[in-house]
Amino acid sequence: MAEETENIQFELTDDLVNQVESLIRLNRDKDLKNLLDDFHYADIAEILDELDLEEAMYVIKLLDSETTADILMELDEDNREKVLRNLSTKEIAEEIAELDTDDAADIIAELPEERRQEVISQIEDEDHKAEITELLKYDEDSAGGLMAKELVKVYDTWTVAGCLRRLRGQAKEVTRVHSVYVVDKQEKLVGRLSLKDLIVAKNEQKIADIYISSVDYVNVNDDAEDVARVMQKYDLEAIPVVDDDMKLLGRITIDDIVDVMKEEAERDYQLAAGISQDVEADDSIFELTKARLPWLLIGMFGGLGAAAIITVFQSAISDLTKISDLTLMKELAMLTSFVPLIQATAGNVGVQSSAIVVQGLANDTIDGKIFKRLFKEFLLGLINGLGIALIVLPITHFLFDTPYLVSTTICIALIAVIVIAALIGTFIPIFLDKRGIDPAVATGPFITTSNDIFGILIYFSIAKLILGF
Amino acid sequence: MAEETENIQFELTDDLVNQVESLIRLNRDKDLKNLLDDFHYADIAEILDELDLEEAMYVIKLLDSETTADILMELDEDNREKVLRNLSTKEIAEEIAELDTDDAADIIAELPEERRQEVISQIEDEDHKAEITELLKYDEDSAGGLMAKELVKVYDTWTVAGCLRRLRGQAKEVTRVHSVYVVDKQEKLVGRLSLKDLIVAKNEQKIADIYISSVDYVNVNDDAEDVARVMQKYDLEAIPVVDDDMKLLGRITIDDIVDVMKEEAERDYQLAAGISQDVEADDSIFELTKARLPWLLIGMFGGLGAAAIITVFQSAISDLTKISDLTLMKELAMLTSFVPLIQATAGNVGVQSSAIVVQGLANDTIDGKIFKRLFKEFLLGLINGLGIALIVLPITHFLFDTPYLVSTTICIALIAVIVIAALIGTFIPIFLDKRGIDPAVATGPFITTSNDIFGILIYFSIAKLILGF
Repeated sequence: MAEETENIQFELTDDLVNQVESLIRLNRDKDLKNLLDDFHYADIAEILDELDLEEAMYVIKLLDSETTADILMELDEDNREKVLRNLSTKEIAEEIAELDTDDAADIIAELPEERRQEVISQIEDEDHKAEITELLKYDEDSAGGLMAKELVKVYDTWTVAGCLRRLRGQAKEVTRVHSVYVVDKQEKLVGRLSLKDLIVAKNEQKIADIYISSVDYVNVNDDAEDVARVMQKYDLEAIPVVDDDMKLLGRITIDDIVDVMKEEAERDYQLAAGISQDVEADDSIFELTKARLPWLLIGMFGGLGAAAIITVFQSAISDLTKISDLTLMKELAMLTSFVPLIQATAGNVGVQSSAIVVQGLANDTIDGKIFKRLFKEFLLGLINGLGIALIVLPITHFLFDTPYLVSTTICIALIAVIVIAALIGTFIPIFLDKRGIDPAVATGPFITTSNDIFGILIYFSIAKLILGF
Repeated sequence: MAEETENIQFELTDDLVNQVESLIRLNRDKDLKNLLDDFHYADIAEILDELDLEEAMYVIKLLDSETTADILMELDEDNREKVLRNLSTKEIAEEIAELDTDDAADIIAELPEERRQEVISQIEDEDHKAEITELLKYDEDSAGGLMAKELVKVYDTWTVAGCLRRLRGQAKEVTRVHSVYVVDKQEKLVGRLSLKDLIVAKNEQKIADIYISSVDYVNVNDDAEDVARVMQKYDLEAIPVVDDDMKLLGRITIDDIVDVMKEEAERDYQLAAGISQDVEADDSIFELTKARLPWLLIGMFGGLGAAAIITVFQSAISDLTKISDLTLMKELAMLTSFVPLIQATAGNVGVQSSAIVVQGLANDTIDGKIFKRLFKEFLLGLINGLGIALIVLPITHFLFDTPYLVSTTICIALIAVIVIAALIGTFIPIFLDKRGIDPAVATGPFITTSNDIFGILIYFSIAKLILGF
């Protein structure tokens, strides 16, 4: 039988996609079904993501609704939307009948408003319908939006034997049993049991005597990211969800949390990279432009602002100096050639500082003492700045032949810019977090653009002080 | 009993830390124990992370080794190292006796070479010792490095009743039973059973008749990040680990994978932000400088390179023009004031492009067609570049009073720089990935520094062509 076990290494090859496409073209339904039967639904979804819509629809109509429901959940969001648009509300209701309540509610929430009611009204199983309708009430980023109604629940008055008997019924409907939740007569959560505990217990024992009363739970209105953090911290694989009266409403499993964590990490990463919407490499050029242009425009205005600052200093010098006295103008030209150095350093320091703060905030490892943290960044900036200035000073003076005063200007400006960039990079995320705004928006282009402008302003102001124009 | 259930919202307050510190100072062991007993070990670890080493050691010596072993695993890595240094090898062996094999092996691997053997030799349970020694053989970033030896295993020849009886023994040692793995006489993995299946099955049935032969598995040498991707894709909560002969060696659970994913996401984020080592906001200034200075230095050399390019163009112009003819020099001054614009744009585009590619590679959604992807980025860059140029052209000409030719130079350079930055940002991660290097190192300062130099070189080269110097 060992030959039948599946290795994890599914590889999506062009050959495989071509094979599927040609079977579709030739209407060889039986061969196609045999071929796809060997694959996990997540793998079939990967294949479908490579096909045209008509080809994907062909496969979906061919396979049974138990498989296609699972495939639907794994499809790329854009593709799922297209497929759903091509299914009748009756067909969607049939797919939904096969899904757990949390996935079913997610699918319905993705439908356009006008189709939602129609699909819900065509779900045949009344319990399933009621549960899905309940889940649709909750915000998608809350514990309620993540939870499923499927869970295994026992009353504290039952015996182990009675419990096992009834579990045989309940458990069939639940894909994975993590914990058995124990409730009292009012359906309030009082504890939990693991299947292991049940197996190890004696048949005649009462549930009330063997259950573990210490049980973690979340409130249905808790934030999804908080639930993720808690499940990770306490290594939980499932957590029950209750309302304000402790009534057991559902449960959240770790696989949903893994998705929340992954989305959060990807979003933070994209924000830091100046991408304003969730896009993938395979999205259309229009989608990609929409996600990328906003930050490019902000960066552009930052660059124009920097140009304005430089121009102001340039014209101040032209006004001051006689047209034939070129010393100051030459010094200004020298100074200007080091603008990229100032700018790059300010940008790098700002991004480093903000990234550390944003991660610290996400992991809850930053305590409230903002002044202590700013002071630490100040010291850090000073040390890094001095180190860099000590390298730049001889290089500019000897290799670039800049006069001593110009080299000094550059180095003092570097130190000042590094310190201020570090402080800005630290302060802004903490400030946003305190105001309830996601600090991750403050990373990347936001920090680099503001540091560009501040950096150049500081640079030329110091130059004006030292060189006296 | 509902009052005893634990809400997830543990909050680490200064008050709590102060209370713990004062109980330690006053040697009020009993009160301290009572206080800490109410907290989850992960919460106690958070408290200990705030204490001095002596205070933390006091708490660790006070609590029983079952709790402290779990606390040890949750401590910040630096703090754990310090605590371990203050424990005798015998004490460490006692902590390890309480841990699952995977955690035990991780702790031992963190010890200095010379203490490892000593600790291992003091583990009393011979089976535990042999299992831990086996796990220490595997690379920490492989499936073998993640797996635990604790698992529930049955032979295909057993009956359901016999199986349940023996499970009562095995299951006591395994914290969470996800799946029961079915092996043949040669200990080769042939299938799996869920506890649910066992509960639902009849007592007299043979395991061989009820087990599911389709079981996902990984090879002990598979890469940890690949295991994480697979478990996430197929929504697995545990996966068995086999050797090349399909012999069952251990199992990996989703909570370990969650940690792998989190570490991977944090590392990518830090790399993109130009932080070269895993640091946290609370690390020492020395640690933070060590992690941050390398990229600052690289950025510094990039900035100096850009300065060199500008200087070369400046001196080329001084050589060409009579000292009193200031037109070209004025044009150059104008051009130079737009260097920050060119640089910021090149940096932003490069980071955006590379971030999308790096994420696509991490998610396996990028197929091999590099030329197709480069062509798409080319188009994307062209569209974004044209959009930005159309805004910059009137602004420079009317607001900054730059002559028509200078404005044209700036805009053509912007388009060229955006296209080339997009291509570099796309090409480098794909190239690194093909060479087996983590593409995430190519994001952040790496891309911005190389784009700084390329961008300015392109800018002044185009200026030379158009303005003719």
